[in-house]
Amino acid sequence: MSTETKGTGTSRRGFLKGAAATGAALGAAGAARAEGDPLITEVQEWASGLGEGVDATPYGMPIEFESDVVRRNVEWLTADTISSINFTPIHALDGTITPQGCAFERHHSGAITLKKEDYRLMINGLVDTPLVFTYADLERFPRVQQTFFLECAANTGMEWAGSQLNGAQYTHGMIHNMEYTGVSLRTLLEEAGLDTAGELKDKWVYVEGADASSNGRSIPMEKALDDCMVAFKANGEALRMEHGYPVRLVVPGWEGNMWVKWLRRIEVMDAPVESREETSKYTDTLEDGTSRKWTWAMDAKSVVTSPSPQMPIQHGKGPLVVTGLAWSGNGAITAVDVSLDGGVTWQEARLAEPGKKMALTRFYLDINWDGSEMFVQSRAMDETGYVQPTKAQLREVRGLNSIYHNNCIQTWHVNANGEANNVEVS
Amino acid sequence: MSTETKGTGTSRRGFLKGAAATGAALGAAGAARAEGDPLITEVQEWASGLGEGVDATPYGMPIEFESDVVRRNVEWLTADTISSINFTPIHALDGTITPQGCAFERHHSGAITLKKEDYRLMINGLVDTPLVFTYADLERFPRVQQTFFLECAANTGMEWAGSQLNGAQYTHGMIHNMEYTGVSLRTLLEEAGLDTAGELKDKWVYVEGADASSNGRSIPMEKALDDCMVAFKANGEALRMEHGYPVRLVVPGWEGNMWVKWLRRIEVMDAPVESREETSKYTDTLEDGTSRKWTWAMDAKSVVTSPSPQMPIQHGKGPLVVTGLAWSGNGAITAVDVSLDGGVTWQEARLAEPGKKMALTRFYLDINWDGSEMFVQSRAMDETGYVQPTKAQLREVRGLNSIYHNNCIQTWHVNANGEANNVEVS
Repeated sequence: MSTETKGTGTSRRGFLKGAAATGAALGAAGAARAEGDPLITEVQEWASGLGEGVDATPYGMPIEFESDVVRRNVEWLTADTISSINFTPIHALDGTITPQGCAFERHHSGAITLKKEDYRLMINGLVDTPLVFTYADLERFPRVQQTFFLECAANTGMEWAGSQLNGAQYTHGMIHNMEYTGVSLRTLLEEAGLDTAGELKDKWVYVEGADASSNGRSIPMEKALDDCMVAFKANGEALRMEHGYPVRLVVPGWEGNMWVKWLRRIEVMDAPVESREETSKYTDTLEDGTSRKWTWAMDAKSVVTSPSPQMPIQHGKGPLVVTGLAWSGNGAITAVDVSLDGGVTWQEARLAEPGKKMALTRFYLDINWDGSEMFVQSRAMDETGYVQPTKAQLREVRGLNSIYHNNCIQTWHVNANGEANNVEVS
Repeated sequence: MSTETKGTGTSRRGFLKGAAATGAALGAAGAARAEGDPLITEVQEWASGLGEGVDATPYGMPIEFESDVVRRNVEWLTADTISSINFTPIHALDGTITPQGCAFERHHSGAITLKKEDYRLMINGLVDTPLVFTYADLERFPRVQQTFFLECAANTGMEWAGSQLNGAQYTHGMIHNMEYTGVSLRTLLEEAGLDTAGELKDKWVYVEGADASSNGRSIPMEKALDDCMVAFKANGEALRMEHGYPVRLVVPGWEGNMWVKWLRRIEVMDAPVESREETSKYTDTLEDGTSRKWTWAMDAKSVVTSPSPQMPIQHGKGPLVVTGLAWSGNGAITAVDVSLDGGVTWQEARLAEPGKKMALTRFYLDINWDGSEMFVQSRAMDETGYVQPTKAQLREVRGLNSIYHNNCIQTWHVNANGEANNVEVS
């Protein structure tokens, strides 16, 4: 298959016409179509009367026709609904921002209902003055704002053993990307009298939430003072309940489990806690039975969201937009390559906008599909020079005992009918 | 009053303690508080059981406590609910992204329900090949992605005659800011055989929607080929019904009325149509009775969203975050000044992130409020060197006959109780 010219600045005249000439089932372009199409020639119901009044939707929801663009669970994957995962429908989204309504949720003891008036945040431990902040207190500190992705460490975790989940929503949907507003963690630690001029490299903060899950995590002080945020808004509005209302921690680029929801306490310590969530969980057991720990940053990763198992090609041969998402917990995405033949040859995709640090990047490759089968892959590179590995490369280093931190290249097999399936290529 | 040090990189130790020393009603910081606060010392209900399961929310809504963060109408402002305006609650938001659910809506004959299968877009007029695109066709063209604000030309329109609406939601809430994905209008015009190498400077496109409103607008070809987008996603997901599902036009920086919803037809012409919506409406009648037309770009503007009439200061004296939004239809915001004394003296605010072209910019000024009355203003500057004018300056040029394009400096009077009201200063 040949690749269409990339970019929108160049002339694309004849884009669909050219495709039609090659036999693709386009059917829509051309003036002749207009003459026989009542949707063009006849006055429609929606053009001849009044639409809905606007008072009906003080807070609007998606239109009924988009009811399939929702979070979904995989019932067999988790033991009960309380600890289940509800994946982002990334296959059906475009751009980079994730709407709160369908941004994935993962809880260890369910989502709790916590009023702002009942919210308290304690900072204690190795500080001059242990402090307790109310929600109203937090609103009085200088604020910061930035867009970050949050990826669960277990995202793509079922793919270690094979190609188990058939859809980008399930293989890669434990991710979302929102614009956060809050107070930098540094600001609050300094308020409590952390002497930031002193020896801090051996210090840690331990963060925990107000829910019953006992999800607590140790964060090295260098990260805590660098870019962590005590956030109360996402995409402009208050956090949603399922994302930690009223306050969660934002730990840019690092695994989602550390982004503690309903943030209740921050203790400054001279050692990590080695809590359950950072020892028996969220570590990577290697081939020899030992486990890697402190693998916090989510390495560079990408996935083609369309075509994909939930987004088959329905229009036949001809022009096709191949698109997906790329991200890195170590900085900005600098390039994404796409392969249509399972990694034998690669083409550089077009980034919709320049990569931003620890935020999702959208990529596109505009092709002219000849209708033959494809093995579609994407491969992300970040500003550190890191290149997303193949599954074979990752297994060579990590073995098959891991659950977490699978950032391997994903393969979708697309058949002549345009249907896509999750496969492995050797 | 004095201004706190700006930025978060510098030490803020003692921020609240310092404020407490000045007598502000803080009440929350300090270890002593923790000892007597059952929210700290007692195990709470939400920490002792399971929260809600996650399957309940395939598409989530804001938590019940945020039910006041909704679009609102002003009943007397428009004749009927079909043509009414539902304003964005900008006073209660932070950051820059506007969630779709509360992004303002304004219709001329209500919001229509149009399925993707019933959608058609015709390009006709001075093109080689008139074309009709289905929704599926549009998805096959190369896509672009960018965040833009949309401001209704009538935003702040009631303020020409005085200070009439008491709240930032009502004075400045006909604006939203979303990340759009779609196909560039240039791509589609080229597909229809517009000879972009020829003489185009005298050409126009006329765009109209599929609803019954007959809202049609003429756009000069230079703009049509520059950055206009035929958009089908906003903030990652499908456009909402009230924002033109499935397809609307995006005309970056230009008045919202031109961003035609349910986009149905684009005609290439050798002159503007001079339609109702660009002659008797959306023009600016001057003091001498003549009217300015083709005033498409929304000039640089800003507003303090908090404190404001709907967001009084409730915590008394001491640290206070003054925040707001700035934007320009002519490029990026480069600076925002804030005045607390009605424009006598100004301080440069901190931009949360560098200004982006034709997108909202969030600004902050962190002050230590001494409890005396303030006349709070903000003043935006853009990359062209343009400075947002005072109301007096604007009236001097435009008189009092205008409805549209009021980008004057807004004043909130804040009294000693922290209550804010919409006022004019001479």
